[in-house]
Amino acid sequence: MADSAMTVRYAVVVTIGVFLLKSCSGEETDIKLDKKAQLLHRLDSLNLLLYTFLLILTVLTIWTFKHRRLRFLHETGLAVIYGLIVGAIIRYGFTNSSTIVHMPVVPEPDGSHYNQSVPPDTLWLRFPESKGDGTTKNKTFAYSFRGEIYKRDNEIDLKATFDPEIFFNIILPPIIFHAGYSLKRKYFFRNLGAILTYALIGTTISSFVIGALMYTFIQLIPHLASSFTFLDTLYFGALISPTDPLTIISIFNDLHVDVNLYALVFGESVLNDAVAIVLSGSIQNYAERYQSGSGGFETWAFFQALGDFIRIFSLSLFIGATMGCVTALLTKFTRVRDFPLLESALFVLMSYSTFLIAEASDLTGVVAVLFCGICQAHYTYNNLSVDSRQRTKQLFELLNFLAENFIFSYIGVSMFTFPKHHFDPGFIFAGFFCALLGRAVNVYPLSFLLNLGRNPKIPLNYQHMLFCAGLRGAMSFALAIRNTVSDARQAMLTTTSLIVILTVILQGGATTQFLSWFNIPVGVDEEVEVLSYNGVRSGGSLSMGGSTSKTNEKALLARIWGNFDTHYMKPLLTHSRPTLLDTLPVCCGPLARILTTTQQMTQDNVARRVDSDSDLCLEDRDTDRRRTSIQPLGTVTGEVSPGQQPLHTRVALPGLIGRHL
Amino acid sequence: MADSAMTVRYAVVVTIGVFLLKSCSGEETDIKLDKKAQLLHRLDSLNLLLYTFLLILTVLTIWTFKHRRLRFLHETGLAVIYGLIVGAIIRYGFTNSSTIVHMPVVPEPDGSHYNQSVPPDTLWLRFPESKGDGTTKNKTFAYSFRGEIYKRDNEIDLKATFDPEIFFNIILPPIIFHAGYSLKRKYFFRNLGAILTYALIGTTISSFVIGALMYTFIQLIPHLASSFTFLDTLYFGALISPTDPLTIISIFNDLHVDVNLYALVFGESVLNDAVAIVLSGSIQNYAERYQSGSGGFETWAFFQALGDFIRIFSLSLFIGATMGCVTALLTKFTRVRDFPLLESALFVLMSYSTFLIAEASDLTGVVAVLFCGICQAHYTYNNLSVDSRQRTKQLFELLNFLAENFIFSYIGVSMFTFPKHHFDPGFIFAGFFCALLGRAVNVYPLSFLLNLGRNPKIPLNYQHMLFCAGLRGAMSFALAIRNTVSDARQAMLTTTSLIVILTVILQGGATTQFLSWFNIPVGVDEEVEVLSYNGVRSGGSLSMGGSTSKTNEKALLARIWGNFDTHYMKPLLTHSRPTLLDTLPVCCGPLARILTTTQQMTQDNVARRVDSDSDLCLEDRDTDRRRTSIQPLGTVTGEVSPGQQPLHTRVALPGLIGRHL
Repeated sequence: MADSAMTVRYAVVVTIGVFLLKSCSGEETDIKLDKKAQLLHRLDSLNLLLYTFLLILTVLTIWTFKHRRLRFLHETGLAVIYGLIVGAIIRYGFTNSSTIVHMPVVPEPDGSHYNQSVPPDTLWLRFPESKGDGTTKNKTFAYSFRGEIYKRDNEIDLKATFDPEIFFNIILPPIIFHAGYSLKRKYFFRNLGAILTYALIGTTISSFVIGALMYTFIQLIPHLASSFTFLDTLYFGALISPTDPLTIISIFNDLHVDVNLYALVFGESVLNDAVAIVLSGSIQNYAERYQSGSGGFETWAFFQALGDFIRIFSLSLFIGATMGCVTALLTKFTRVRDFPLLESALFVLMSYSTFLIAEASDLTGVVAVLFCGICQAHYTYNNLSVDSRQRTKQLFELLNFLAENFIFSYIGVSMFTFPKHHFDPGFIFAGFFCALLGRAVNVYPLSFLLNLGRNPKIPLNYQHMLFCAGLRGAMSFALAIRNTVSDARQAMLTTTSLIVILTVILQGGATTQFLSWFNIPVGVDEEVEVLSYNGVRSGGSLSMGGSTSKTNEKALLARIWGNFDTHYMKPLLTHSRPTLLDTLPVCCGPLARILTTTQQMTQDNVARRVDSDSDLCLEDRDTDRRRTSIQPLGTVTGEVSPGQQPLHTRVALPGLIGRHL
Repeated sequence: MADSAMTVRYAVVVTIGVFLLKSCSGEETDIKLDKKAQLLHRLDSLNLLLYTFLLILTVLTIWTFKHRRLRFLHETGLAVIYGLIVGAIIRYGFTNSSTIVHMPVVPEPDGSHYNQSVPPDTLWLRFPESKGDGTTKNKTFAYSFRGEIYKRDNEIDLKATFDPEIFFNIILPPIIFHAGYSLKRKYFFRNLGAILTYALIGTTISSFVIGALMYTFIQLIPHLASSFTFLDTLYFGALISPTDPLTIISIFNDLHVDVNLYALVFGESVLNDAVAIVLSGSIQNYAERYQSGSGGFETWAFFQALGDFIRIFSLSLFIGATMGCVTALLTKFTRVRDFPLLESALFVLMSYSTFLIAEASDLTGVVAVLFCGICQAHYTYNNLSVDSRQRTKQLFELLNFLAENFIFSYIGVSMFTFPKHHFDPGFIFAGFFCALLGRAVNVYPLSFLLNLGRNPKIPLNYQHMLFCAGLRGAMSFALAIRNTVSDARQAMLTTTSLIVILTVILQGGATTQFLSWFNIPVGVDEEVEVLSYNGVRSGGSLSMGGSTSKTNEKALLARIWGNFDTHYMKPLLTHSRPTLLDTLPVCCGPLARILTTTQQMTQDNVARRVDSDSDLCLEDRDTDRRRTSIQPLGTVTGEVSPGQQPLHTRVALPGLIGRHL
């Protein structure tokens, strides 16, 4: 994880300072610079230490909560609250003595560089240093480009803040990858139509509705009307639309809420993050290319933005899926699984390179890792050794946990310490109202339309729950803090932070209430579900057999994909049966033989069978893992009871290796 | 992991540029800046991608080697070789079109800031931007401090290079922590005297001998004599002294070389890294404070440097050990082990905060995490749940693998791409000669002295093997690249890189040869060793019962510590028996009762017994883990054979819960 990355504000000064200045000459300026660099390095360390302690505190408190079975507060909610408290202490408890010294400069008299239209990358400042004997000696210092200054007086010292780009390059990728990697794919694919509808269409509608409404609101408030364009409010709509129902998901897990509702809530939240980041990028591009702040509309620019959206989304998806498949091929056709450490390293490196490839191609790395994660879980996971499965799952679970809690405690702290907040009561009120309405516009009309063509309809109480699962989280905040150059953007950041904080704490805290109000069935046993669905699934239909033509088509698409996946993708990418020898036409025999491993053809040990019905296997292990890590070990799995091994409780798909182990 | 961290050279420009410039105004300069920032971000991503691909290539190749049981090349050696190849391709294959634009500047005419002795933190450049209509508009851009420029013409573009500080803040900590966490403590403590002698005294002697010899050499070469001071060569001695015998260790593991030789080689290499980093820091401080390049000697300054060394080393050790013990207490007295994810997160956060605390206190984070790792393994590990033990072990093993291979491939690549190399044949030759001699001066005289007082003497063939295990690695390189401001430092970097590359490839490749030349016993069964030592150990003596008074004293110290550890530290920090109720005097009864958990008093399940003889348990699991990850699963442990569970193959310590499970 790197580029740009952890560039805490003055990190650069510090490190390069330390590096360049640790020379052997002990002159006054050098020593002072060295001291300063050391001081800054210590401040940096303290800064990180603050967040580390916040996380330790969160972990210990949430343990107490879980220990006492209190469910009203999720760890992320707690992280926000602790963040707020510590932020307030930093803001009001310490006066900042270290000030940054600015010096206005002009080019050297010859002025030859003034002809360029872009500011230079580096400035060289000749700095006269007075020596002990009264003479001066010129030293040259390098300064590197940081960016434009909009208000000279707004450059106050940043305390406990990080470069916003770290969220996109360090914090979000593991969260999103984990979401893809831990997706319960069976239920996800079964509800794919509804999930795609909510995530793609719903998020877009929600963005535009919020954008339009906010714009209307703002026209009513004179002092805001001038500083916001329609594109600004549309951008706000895009960034506030993605949901992040961590608390809800975790409580669903604890209480074993119906898996289909679970799939709808989780699936939507995973995909709408991807939609929102690409959508906001397209709006940004549209704004940059064809606007100069007037808020007008150009048809061609609009279609270009639409093209941008489709291109970036689909190419990122393609890169992610491809890299996932390449990893699957590598793990299938080499025996690297004999060396779990190498295998895990390969897995991590391939996944990380997906992010980098997408970023290097000017696409969206976050979207690419999401689909890479889904493919890794769907194909590669089945080829991995037992050791690597566990290792990769646990690794990303841990990274996800740390990253999530870090970002939420940062949201809390930055509420007080980030210097570019702009509290505007009107905008905040409008923001809350529109966010609620945007969620409603996403859920209810689309559910109605979906129900026209869905066989197991989405009941009204599920719709209410979906509405209430509209918590906002990491993605909204990351998008909001990425750009805080104007008053408008600063007001958006403040409103977004407040919406995130309040929804996470209030909506999150009321989840169990919602569940009982809406009579959502809890304690549903997943195994039962699995069995009752088996007939439908093995028959090839993915439970989408609806009535209208549109849904039929979708069901057809899903069916085609399901068949293709079972007959060609899985045999190619994993050790599953049927092999390509069975599914490819006879003329492709030689090719099929090359692409079929001997392991795939001989079914002689346990590992093989685990591979074969990988889907179910993965998901059950999944559930198991979730439970063991969220609930006490003793109560669910028992500690080392040999009679209960996750591997052997699987229910096999009828038609494949269909016997209970 | 953060501060300073991943600041690839222009990362800052990129990220802050992107962040500040993604505004809605679409003027020419903005668009150009935006394009430039995007380009730089892409270059950054490509840069990281290069290393990711190098690592993927290394993983796949090393798999082939292991698969074919080729042992002549370790993965780090391979990473270096691939790095060299790719570095050469980058250097000679691409011409660099993107140039950095520099502009010399002077302060604005009023010149009020010239009075300060330290250069300002930020420069503000007013930049006239010509608009389409012929007028110009002033924009102000901020530039942040980077460091002093020594040679204006030496600022060529850096390709594929990173800020050297990332090694100290990102790459080394997990490597060093893993070394501490995976130390086979039993054998380490048994050979503690010898290991401390080699690491502390040996490394210091070696540094001074190399420093003095190099200085003598350099006086013979006229063009070098002027640019090197004695402190420079002493610094070189300190940075080239620590050994990093990764290849050797890995082959020792594969071939089951005698565990005591293993402990000597590994233990020394772990500790001499810590000694070298503190030693070089003290030399640096000494140089900075009291020298101005003349190479003289001041008694007081020398003693202050000595004080620095002792203070920094012992305080870092203290912080590391304390944080390790605090983690042990936290995991003992809370039931956080019921939630493995929280527990693992706590473990990681506490370990990372150790690094940060040490850095924030101006101490050495790397040394602190080493001792934190040792304490975590010695105490905390026994309190962890089975899930967390595995998770933390696997996590750090993976991080260690990635970090190690990254640094070695970087050594390879930077040999060609780092612009500050200075090839001086004389210095390189002298460096190689002195490095060899320094190693000899460390091993042979000290072994002779040790053998005077050791009961199981260190035979001559072991000494030869110790000499041959003097590979140089990550720490030497990181120390050398940290400071490349002068010609002397650049020559040191080049020589260090070459020494690292050649020792890793040649000495590493010849390890099996060495083993057979020196008749080192291989295939030694650790269990046998364990049993034969049990009598000695349970009697309280740590096999150090030597003959001379000096060794007796050391054995006495070790015995006192061993007793204290068994009677007070372990009962306090872990769930082991005997409890404090048994060991503390009667008057401390109430206190002892508070500090003893009910879990510790009732011995009713397996988990408890695992805790009790934790040392052996950990080490055997250790060996097991090592083997599973280095050797094929099938050949050593079998895949899911239920009769062979690592937990149940332990040999219990007689006198404790001494029955075979």
